[in-house]
Amino acid sequence: MRYNNRKADQLRPINVELGINKHAEGSCLIKCGDTHVMCTATVEEKVPTWIKGTGTGWITAEYGMLPRSTQTRMDRESKKGQSGRTHEIQRLIGRALRAAVDLKAMGEISIKIDCDVIQADGGTRTASITGGFMALYQALEKLVSEGKIKQNPIKDSVCAISCGICDGQAYLDLDYNEDSSAETDSNFVITGSGRLVEIQGTAEGEPFTTEQLMDLLKLAQKGCDELKNLQQTLLGYKGA
Amino acid sequence: MRYNNRKADQLRPINVELGINKHAEGSCLIKCGDTHVMCTATVEEKVPTWIKGTGTGWITAEYGMLPRSTQTRMDRESKKGQSGRTHEIQRLIGRALRAAVDLKAMGEISIKIDCDVIQADGGTRTASITGGFMALYQALEKLVSEGKIKQNPIKDSVCAISCGICDGQAYLDLDYNEDSSAETDSNFVITGSGRLVEIQGTAEGEPFTTEQLMDLLKLAQKGCDELKNLQQTLLGYKGA
Amino acid sequence: MRYNNRKADQLRPINVELGINKHAEGSCLIKCGDTHVMCTATVEEKVPTWIKGTGTGWITAEYGMLPRSTQTRMDRESKKGQSGRTHEIQRLIGRALRAAVDLKAMGEISIKIDCDVIQADGGTRTASITGGFMALYQALEKLVSEGKIKQNPIKDSVCAISCGICDGQAYLDLDYNEDSSAETDSNFVITGSGRLVEIQGTAEGEPFTTEQLMDLLKLAQKGCDELKNLQQTLLGYKGA
Amino acid sequence: MRYNNRKADQLRPINVELGINKHAEGSCLIKCGDTHVMCTATVEEKVPTWIKGTGTGWITAEYGMLPRSTQTRMDRESKKGQSGRTHEIQRLIGRALRAAVDLKAMGEISIKIDCDVIQADGGTRTASITGGFMALYQALEKLVSEGKIKQNPIKDSVCAISCGICDGQAYLDLDYNEDSSAETDSNFVITGSGRLVEIQGTAEGEPFTTEQLMDLLKLAQKGCDELKNLQQTLLGYKGA
Amino acid sequence: MRYNNRKADQLRPINVELGINKHAEGSCLIKCGDTHVMCTATVEEKVPTWIKGTGTGWITAEYGMLPRSTQTRMDRESKKGQSGRTHEIQRLIGRALRAAVDLKAMGEISIKIDCDVIQADGGTRTASITGGFMALYQALEKLVSEGKIKQNPIKDSVCAISCGICDGQAYLDLDYNEDSSAETDSNFVITGSGRLVEIQGTAEGEPFTTEQLMDLLKLAQKGCDELKNLQQTLLGYKGA
Amino acid sequence: MRYNNRKADQLRPINVELGINKHAEGSCLIKCGDTHVMCTATVEEKVPTWIKGTGTGWITAEYGMLPRSTQTRMDRESKKGQSGRTHEIQRLIGRALRAAVDLKAMGEISIKIDCDVIQADGGTRTASITGGFMALYQALEKLVSEGKIKQNPIKDSVCAISCGICDGQAYLDLDYNEDSSAETDSNFVITGSGRLVEIQGTAEGEPFTTEQLMDLLKLAQKGCDELKNLQQTLLGYKGA
Repeated sequence: MRYNNRKADQLRPINVELGINKHAEGSCLIKCGDTHVMCTATVEEKVPTWIKGTGTGWITAEYGMLPRSTQTRMDRESKKGQSGRTHEIQRLIGRALRAAVDLKAMGEISIKIDCDVIQADGGTRTASITGGFMALYQALEKLVSEGKIKQNPIKDSVCAISCGICDGQAYLDLDYNEDSSAETDSNFVITGSGRLVEIQGTAEGEPFTTEQLMDLLKLAQKGCDELKNLQQTLLGYKGA
Repeated sequence: MRYNNRKADQLRPINVELGINKHAEGSCLIKCGDTHVMCTATVEEKVPTWIKGTGTGWITAEYGMLPRSTQTRMDRESKKGQSGRTHEIQRLIGRALRAAVDLKAMGEISIKIDCDVIQADGGTRTASITGGFMALYQALEKLVSEGKIKQNPIKDSVCAISCGICDGQAYLDLDYNEDSSAETDSNFVITGSGRLVEIQGTAEGEPFTTEQLMDLLKLAQKGCDELKNLQQTLLGYKGA
Repeated sequence: MRYNNRKADQLRPINVELGINKHAEGSCLIKCGDTHVMCTATVEEKVPTWIKGTGTGWITAEYGMLPRSTQTRMDRESKKGQSGRTHEIQRLIGRALRAAVDLKAMGEISIKIDCDVIQADGGTRTASITGGFMALYQALEKLVSEGKIKQNPIKDSVCAISCGICDGQAYLDLDYNEDSSAETDSNFVITGSGRLVEIQGTAEGEPFTTEQLMDLLKLAQKGCDELKNLQQTLLGYKGA
Repeated sequence: MRYNNRKADQLRPINVELGINKHAEGSCLIKCGDTHVMCTATVEEKVPTWIKGTGTGWITAEYGMLPRSTQTRMDRESKKGQSGRTHEIQRLIGRALRAAVDLKAMGEISIKIDCDVIQADGGTRTASITGGFMALYQALEKLVSEGKIKQNPIKDSVCAISCGICDGQAYLDLDYNEDSSAETDSNFVITGSGRLVEIQGTAEGEPFTTEQLMDLLKLAQKGCDELKNLQQTLLGYKGA
Repeated sequence: MRYNNRKADQLRPINVELGINKHAEGSCLIKCGDTHVMCTATVEEKVPTWIKGTGTGWITAEYGMLPRSTQTRMDRESKKGQSGRTHEIQRLIGRALRAAVDLKAMGEISIKIDCDVIQADGGTRTASITGGFMALYQALEKLVSEGKIKQNPIKDSVCAISCGICDGQAYLDLDYNEDSSAETDSNFVITGSGRLVEIQGTAEGEPFTTEQLMDLLKLAQKGCDELKNLQQTLLGYKGA
Repeated sequence: MRYNNRKADQLRPINVELGINKHAEGSCLIKCGDTHVMCTATVEEKVPTWIKGTGTGWITAEYGMLPRSTQTRMDRESKKGQSGRTHEIQRLIGRALRAAVDLKAMGEISIKIDCDVIQADGGTRTASITGGFMALYQALEKLVSEGKIKQNPIKDSVCAISCGICDGQAYLDLDYNEDSSAETDSNFVITGSGRLVEIQGTAEGEPFTTEQLMDLLKLAQKGCDELKNLQQTLLGYKGA
């Protein structure tokens, strides 16, 4: 049992509220334990110049943290510029969400997913991907209902989870305390059909073995399977 | 009757949820109609160098808008830097909140109030002041309960409201639609005892008369009286 | 009597020299006591994209302080970027000057008014507006004389003055010393026909009452009446 | 056979020249095929404030590309600021190199590894890690020879390689052409004793399977084993 | 005769007004024809860290142009950052002025000379040096009169002038029109005793010969001799 | 004899390797003693808007230093922005190289010369010009061989050297140690036919005399004559 009364392979309680922004084309507030992220989708009926005229769509993401989302207040990035970490995370979210969509079937439409962390307790980037997919899906459904796209170009759902090794043992869905003391930290982005979109594993302390990598992967697959079921239920989406 | 079924001197429905952030020393989510602002207070036990050693405290504010808080998505200020409007608003919020507190009785403590607009529909700066006061009050109470300040140094409560002139008629608490078409736009910051902390009136179209200024002021006094009552009830504060 | 031998309702000595820049389409050096501001008007025969094709003109302002205009040298904004105060002031000057002109009668022409403070002793933003109007007027007259506009689109003159409350008493046209110790500081932008374009009142110390606001307004109206007369004499303009 | 006459599990020709900079405490020019990276180590006998007084050392890395290192000239980052990609890569190099060193045994010394890409043809970040370790090792040896550290605090060597999946087949050490068309791109940082420091796999096109991940990992282990032997020979280092 | 009725070796009319800024420790407005530059000196009783404790003083300069000092309005550097040209000029002014002073005899005092171009018509950097010396001299005299320096540490006066080659002929003190069409443009900084502090010659079109360089140098020496006399008269300074 | 066993009028050993970059249209690595600069030429078949349609070409240069090119590591300009010194140098290199080419005969083509200092020991800007000319020449020859320009528009070769006065004596081609202690530092850009393109002389300590300027010029002419011969030999260029 972990200090927070979870089993090694147990997710934190998850709560998702859809449609929480009256302006956005898709939106949700996802709460994974004490990590709360607001995700909104913005549709624009044009694409970057480098794909203009190809009939292809595009999806990007931006990520931010409110200054007091963290235990100690962070300076605003509007004052000091976006950090390397922010760039890294928003590139990751964008790649993950593009993997879920047949961009060629989308037409010349861009969708931007904004993920803003209201409160942080570990796993903000993976919550952003899991919630961002739901905002994206809503926006695509809206485009279909408005007749701007014939068919929803989602190929597969996508979600993400972190895992880590603490004291030599692998755990699913680390909170901030666990993450701070983990020897190895990893993030997995996995499709509804169980394939890998992204895998990142980093030894913060001791390097890890191939066997430990396999343990982490198995936990991630279990966690993402549960997240996929939640996404499908909430969105009324039957999967790939 | 206005298009939104309000009388000329009627506020929008207000809803305030206190304590919505587990990290902050004070926090609330204030909803004035469809304008939603998250306010958090951060306490730091040191002051800027220019008042160090004087025993005086300091209060500042920062203001931001989530990119999709607006009807059309705004670029993040972390990408393009803070606008003149942002600077103007956060300076206003800071001045307003400092007027509520006996800084000399506060000791060498700084409090920063962050006001982040989750959804915007007019009046975001005045909602930030009204909500910011509540986050500030909570943080000061916490300092008292922890024995870091002997007595809460609040001198008076403070709140704010906008008023405007549309088609020659004065209205209280404009929403975004009304604000866009107003000939004169004004903001009032008023203490619980009814004195003025800040008054700003701008003719967007035709200049206005002294009489019209008086009409706006009367509406603002009525609105702020209602806001003060709400603040006092929620905070259990009896006033100056 | 004030420390500088002025009565409570007395302006500082004013001196305006027109046409002080050989390149600009309009220019003046305005001296309000020891506050000296150079104002130039630059005409461009195109407008911002958002009004292109509407036949409407546009007027903006920029404001700067020379590094040693102040008692203690200020860092150049070219080294550290424009401050929030600078943004606030140049937005104010722009709004004030636009209120003087029928933009629709101006045609697709832009005029930029640059206000550069050569020496500062309080009231730089109001001197900028009073002087800026004169540079603007000259530039419009030049456009008329060149046949680029049929008729001068000035609707009314505009000027500005500061007032404040020191030791409970209201004073007109504060210099830097007075301004530093004022409890309430205010700026008024008033048209030649006596209507209000902008009113800003801020309690730096104690909040102020409605009666005090009225006292400040009366002083401002007296001061602006004198400034209007000076503007009309110098420009040979008969008013609205 | 690949288009460049390599087998699927074959590295590009590698050439390393040590000591190529007369100022730096350690340096090399590493050539992996047509990818040429200059690595220098800079020693500073102080540490960041957050570890001051702990007796612990610190290692960071910076990464840059000369403007014409690429086929089409890139703008200088000194003109447009560091990109998200640059931040991501230099953070990765830093983490990788810190994993090789017992920072506690290093004393309060900082080492910065600069990796500047002279010519790019794929795999610049992995070449930076492999070469950066050699510059780092030299700098640590120099500190030992100067008596500033008692014993070289290297725990294990570290090197890195990229692998990818093209047309469903896994390949070692992709050049730029291969990388551009790969469905999955991955980077592995592996210690001399064969443990994992970092693993990053990204599906650019189709998601990948667990089996494919294993194939990539095996190729990376083979490649890193060869790189480790080269490092040990050149540095006269016997390994962990 | 030149188009502006000057002989080849004739300066433009010069006018200098001393003490034009009530805050600065030294100041002048120098007019060289239609080039008008305001120079102020600011004294600070501390020096940069790299000379702290050596008893040596330091002198720097900053340079700016008001946006409408030029025929076509320039963007403010506070909006777009300082240009390479600005950096180049302010470094030149600083070097020139430091050559006039025995920094070791100055004590740990810094003087900053601000040169702001009010109106430009060629030769703004040389006018800045000539005027800047006068502001500097006044500030040093003030320090002597206040007892902060025992003796004025000026070693020699310094002034500057531009020369150029147009249609193969050498001319002194080019105005903007002449400068725009010159094949070679040069600036000379010369001490009161006739020695060279700085010489810069640039072929904008055809390269120049050693003989042409000598012609330019002779003109500069004649011009600077006249400027030196003016400086000495105005300042009551007898020279080295 | 100098401390480095050179005569007063002797260049450091020079070594140039042409074609060191597989992507660039022209490139060389020039080593002047321990100063090593990599120069690349990039051709773009378009010109800046201000010469579009005139049939004229354009040449610019950019300059950078690798962080550990210097004895003490410098911060990257990608982190802190380009310094005034960098701007000054790259403007100088661009002017020098444009003087070598008949831009009108070049057609609407732009060439950018990047000069990146790999290792610095004095004279990096002059080495950049001497090497930059060689990269430029190669790029122009390549354009001729591809039929994009009929004839190589080089008018004359161009090279550059520094000279200085140490202890009253003039020396050619200062290294870093000599440069640090020189009283006067100068740079000369000279064409193959011996005419002057640029001359810059700065008294770091004592001002210099006309005679000393002549001594420096003679040394520079001797040094540039030798550099011209090397350029002609390596490039197979017969001169103007």
